[in-house]
Amino acid sequence: MIIDCHGHFTTAPKTLHAWRKRQLDAINDAASAPEKSDLVITDDEIRAAIEGAQLKTQRERGGDLTLFSPIASQMAHHLGNEQTSLVWAKVCNDLIHRVCNVFPDNFVGVCQLPQSPGVPPANCIAELRRCVEELGFVACNLNPDPSGGYWKDPPLTDRYWYPLYEEMVRLNVPAMVHVSSSCNPCFHATGAHYINGDTTAFMQFLLADLFQDFATLRFVIPHGGGAVPFHWGRYRGLSLEQKQRPVEKLLDNVFFDTCVYHQPGIEFMTRVIPADNILFGSEMIGAVKGRDPATGDYFDDTKRYLDACTHLSSADRHKIFEANVRRVYPRLDAHLKARAANRTLAHS
Amino acid sequence: MIIDCHGHFTTAPKTLHAWRKRQLDAINDAASAPEKSDLVITDDEIRAAIEGAQLKTQRERGGDLTLFSPIASQMAHHLGNEQTSLVWAKVCNDLIHRVCNVFPDNFVGVCQLPQSPGVPPANCIAELRRCVEELGFVACNLNPDPSGGYWKDPPLTDRYWYPLYEEMVRLNVPAMVHVSSSCNPCFHATGAHYINGDTTAFMQFLLADLFQDFATLRFVIPHGGGAVPFHWGRYRGLSLEQKQRPVEKLLDNVFFDTCVYHQPGIEFMTRVIPADNILFGSEMIGAVKGRDPATGDYFDDTKRYLDACTHLSSADRHKIFEANVRRVYPRLDAHLKARAANRTLAHS
Repeated sequence: MIIDCHGHFTTAPKTLHAWRKRQLDAINDAASAPEKSDLVITDDEIRAAIEGAQLKTQRERGGDLTLFSPIASQMAHHLGNEQTSLVWAKVCNDLIHRVCNVFPDNFVGVCQLPQSPGVPPANCIAELRRCVEELGFVACNLNPDPSGGYWKDPPLTDRYWYPLYEEMVRLNVPAMVHVSSSCNPCFHATGAHYINGDTTAFMQFLLADLFQDFATLRFVIPHGGGAVPFHWGRYRGLSLEQKQRPVEKLLDNVFFDTCVYHQPGIEFMTRVIPADNILFGSEMIGAVKGRDPATGDYFDDTKRYLDACTHLSSADRHKIFEANVRRVYPRLDAHLKARAANRTLAHS
Repeated sequence: MIIDCHGHFTTAPKTLHAWRKRQLDAINDAASAPEKSDLVITDDEIRAAIEGAQLKTQRERGGDLTLFSPIASQMAHHLGNEQTSLVWAKVCNDLIHRVCNVFPDNFVGVCQLPQSPGVPPANCIAELRRCVEELGFVACNLNPDPSGGYWKDPPLTDRYWYPLYEEMVRLNVPAMVHVSSSCNPCFHATGAHYINGDTTAFMQFLLADLFQDFATLRFVIPHGGGAVPFHWGRYRGLSLEQKQRPVEKLLDNVFFDTCVYHQPGIEFMTRVIPADNILFGSEMIGAVKGRDPATGDYFDDTKRYLDACTHLSSADRHKIFEANVRRVYPRLDAHLKARAANRTLAHS
């Protein structure tokens, strides 16, 4: 089974964006804010938005299932206030839930959290719980910088975040560390802020004792871990120097996806990072939508790069494409097992 | 000849740090600020600080010459004001000049600029000119984030920076893009802020037309270019999408050093980035001072990694270890040619 751990509903109907615009226009005018129920999207519109896009690409590339979450760049936790983020998260998560209901074989939900700069992450617990316990989601996206490129909140290893981690542990769900758009003109979103966010989060984990406090807390760092594999020697050295422990100690709790958009990058990553810590991801249809003129293939067709890595054993491939995702996302594993059992029952 | 394009005087005598402390303590009390002349360091102290450290390591590792600049993390442009940074830059640059005079065979100067958050980079021109024209320096370190981790100044491609670039072009000196310490608790300096700064600068260059305005302006992005080589496919795709041009167009003006502290990273980088754009650098003695317990070798002994890259031709090695540095730093080339001519004359 081929599970893509990193997909966003980037092709959502335009009515979603129109609703968001209305919401943002009303930030200083609560009375004119749209109701959640003002957003009307039919099942046919959902089918149209998925079938010709994420589902088509999933099938063409040989995928079976995508962990699907709201558009990362549109989370924009820096806009508006806590209430803005809460309503927007609910709207987006509900839409993901509908996609998962229309296409239960192909998509499983991952939620957006209602973060807001300076607002305690504890305030995200209710929405996380709703998504996991009521909507059947299996993880969340956690923004390490709700300020959108100014990095004003404490590091992810600060006790500020602990109440949310306690709930993640209780629910047994991991988080993908994922920034949103940047309002800092220094940082292009997908070309700088995303990659910096990944690198920054890893270094925060390296310096702290978070996983002594939460032995079963798990994070997936997307985009191949930012700069981390390329600078693995730097991190090995810094960990020994700063914490007197091998950086490999982090690998019980920290995982990397494969959103690295060229063959040499994937080859390199799968040689440096243990196969147990690599999860197949593509983020299609996302940051880089085009085809490589040199090969004619899509830049973000990361399965193709993995398939071409001759050094990977079939056991490694099984880990990367399926087993690791099921291990890191236990609720996904439980869901898939229950689904398989139901099907066996239906056919018996 | 083996030229290391990236060294800092990290082993400077403690009196330098004591002087800086006095300067910072007096930020709000100008009358008690130390004079430049209050810093007394003898030639013997300079010899002691260099001979057992940078020079010893340079020789042990088979290097010939290091481009030497003040301690990057101590530039700390975010502390104090413009005047603080100006006096501190002069003090540090003068000390580098003395090192280069005591060890003229082994070190050539690169200057710190007197940047300060919100202060026009044009104000750095006088010190750049002094260092190049009076002290014989061949380049400068340019901090893309004088705010120290909050990224409050405009991107490097903004016209804000143009007057400084005009002077760099006139003097024919490149800049190494190099952040300093971070006062943002989210960013560890050498583990996050440095690498993010490199990645960010490259993406800024990618999105702009800076090198149409300055065809001969040259930047060296240190630490292997941050995340850039690892995400070369992402940058190729983004450049085609955003600017309808191949990212390779940047390679006339943008170069990467080899401060990547493990064998697979250097192997990978030298396969992905053209040899014409790679400059040998180690940043020893710097971010990662220890030895790799797996090999017993120093993490930052990057020459060793390059030596072990069997795919590099001798022509490639000559480029990486010498020719590219002389091409990117024409004043270094002129200096070395003049030195060679003088020696020939002296021996004839």
